[in-house]
Amino acid sequence: MRNAIRWMLVIAVWTVAGCATKPGDPLPSWNEGSIKLAITGFVTSVTTEGVATYVPPAERIAVFDNDGTLWSEQPAYFQLSFAIDRIRALAPEYPEWQTQQPFKAAIEGDMATIAAAGEHGLLQLLMASHAGNTTDEFRQIARDWLATAHHPRFDRRYNELVYQPMLELLDYLRANGFKTFIVSGGGVEFMRVWTEEVYGIPPEQVVGSSIKTRFELRDGVPVLVRLPEIDFVDDKALKPVAINLHIGRRPIFAFGNSDGDHQMLQWTAAGSGPRFAGLVHHTDEVREWAYDRESHIGRLDQALVEARAKDWVIVDMKSDWNRVYPFEDQ
Amino acid sequence: MRNAIRWMLVIAVWTVAGCATKPGDPLPSWNEGSIKLAITGFVTSVTTEGVATYVPPAERIAVFDNDGTLWSEQPAYFQLSFAIDRIRALAPEYPEWQTQQPFKAAIEGDMATIAAAGEHGLLQLLMASHAGNTTDEFRQIARDWLATAHHPRFDRRYNELVYQPMLELLDYLRANGFKTFIVSGGGVEFMRVWTEEVYGIPPEQVVGSSIKTRFELRDGVPVLVRLPEIDFVDDKALKPVAINLHIGRRPIFAFGNSDGDHQMLQWTAAGSGPRFAGLVHHTDEVREWAYDRESHIGRLDQALVEARAKDWVIVDMKSDWNRVYPFEDQ
Repeated sequence: MRNAIRWMLVIAVWTVAGCATKPGDPLPSWNEGSIKLAITGFVTSVTTEGVATYVPPAERIAVFDNDGTLWSEQPAYFQLSFAIDRIRALAPEYPEWQTQQPFKAAIEGDMATIAAAGEHGLLQLLMASHAGNTTDEFRQIARDWLATAHHPRFDRRYNELVYQPMLELLDYLRANGFKTFIVSGGGVEFMRVWTEEVYGIPPEQVVGSSIKTRFELRDGVPVLVRLPEIDFVDDKALKPVAINLHIGRRPIFAFGNSDGDHQMLQWTAAGSGPRFAGLVHHTDEVREWAYDRESHIGRLDQALVEARAKDWVIVDMKSDWNRVYPFEDQ
Repeated sequence: MRNAIRWMLVIAVWTVAGCATKPGDPLPSWNEGSIKLAITGFVTSVTTEGVATYVPPAERIAVFDNDGTLWSEQPAYFQLSFAIDRIRALAPEYPEWQTQQPFKAAIEGDMATIAAAGEHGLLQLLMASHAGNTTDEFRQIARDWLATAHHPRFDRRYNELVYQPMLELLDYLRANGFKTFIVSGGGVEFMRVWTEEVYGIPPEQVVGSSIKTRFELRDGVPVLVRLPEIDFVDDKALKPVAINLHIGRRPIFAFGNSDGDHQMLQWTAAGSGPRFAGLVHHTDEVREWAYDRESHIGRLDQALVEARAKDWVIVDMKSDWNRVYPFEDQ
């Protein structure tokens, strides 16, 4: 009897280990199939010396969108939640916001009115919540928010809602000599607070949207003051512009999830030699969300049409990922 | 007699070897003294684990100005020579330039008239010579120019006029886990053509001035078109702004040579923990040039005052460097 139990235990351990991951598989959260093969095949082709597709390490530049590609973006961009929470925290200093839109809506959490306020309204919220402090102060504010704020659906800190398969992909690329960059419409200072710890991507490899800053000496101490003025919106046709300005070479690998990434994928795919262009398609309303053409957030329409026509890699979240978030039970 | 000659030869070889470099010295072109000690002492202090001044590798960010800090900038910024040569090459397409200033002056090499045309005139020359092509085309034009153009005084290619001691310093820092960046007023696309080969600094670690670019599809092929519009002038108080935007952390080590680097040095020096702020002082009119307060190019006035007051490192080119250019006879 003792022996029988011991053997059952041994078999159980073997089985669990076998299901969870193949030994040495760098991408255990990716199901076996054409998508995983496309990734590993591409990486093998550019890292095998002596073959025509070989790419020297210096040119192995990989770029990733953030919202919807590395972490979730529903029911609203996480940075908008930060902006709203910040407006609420500042509200006592601005009594006029109690009646003035879109601030009133932000204080009340009235997302429909915020959405109806359009681009101008959004800009007002962003400037009121992101500017008027120094870069050091802003980082501390963002850090404090991330440490305490919780996502409404999952009741987790926002930067726990990152995709486990993408974390593995980032590690896998770096282990193969790639330099990984974020190229996101998100605010660059907002992202840099946590991207190094969570993604292993250092601040100097994070490209994003920005507001203007001004250098000042305050009692002889230099500070950078964040001004209520847009500097750069890193989205759509400006993503290749930002890649050229900040990175200075064309990526050979790009991953996005929306039409905001379309031109970045085009720019990457059009280079000579081997190129990888990938889209995360949100198809899993149970574990995450399902949306594409009709979504106001992360709309995926034209880029999906071109991806299908040009045989870019389209990740079906539901079928290609056996795990979405790191915190999921396995 | 034979023996005497042999001994004299042996002694001569010993002496020459002894003067040229100590075995294993990573900075052989730097004379022994307080400046060299300040550099090696700083690097030792931030790389020695267990001491209070230790800085983890990820935070070992070093920034260098380019013109006058890594390569020469006299008798005119080398990029201005490129602009003038480019105007001449384009002149047959623009017959009106034969009479129109500042183009006429550029075609005739009349530097006094170009200088008198001021900032607006310079801008006209820069736009006519740097815009109107794609990023790929511009790089090829700059590459071709660098391969053929010669500096008027030394009759060498411009990117041979780099400072041997600074090449050694860049290598030494990188060997000690530093990430080296250029933060220069020079055009970012112009620099990236040669900085990786000459300095070992990859494009993604070059920050500079830029003109705007626009993403376009030409017959379905994406290009970035260079527009005749200033995007960013990476000089003076905008250098810390650029450092924050592109690098996202405060450097612990900065080297410049002019008032254009003053705020970058202030920003670096004001961080907490060990900081290195250095200036190259051009004091050698025989091997290079001697200039500071009165120079129109690379004026060094206020930064020198603060450097002396705050005990920043001031390199006296004449006495601290035993070699200026790599091509010099030893």
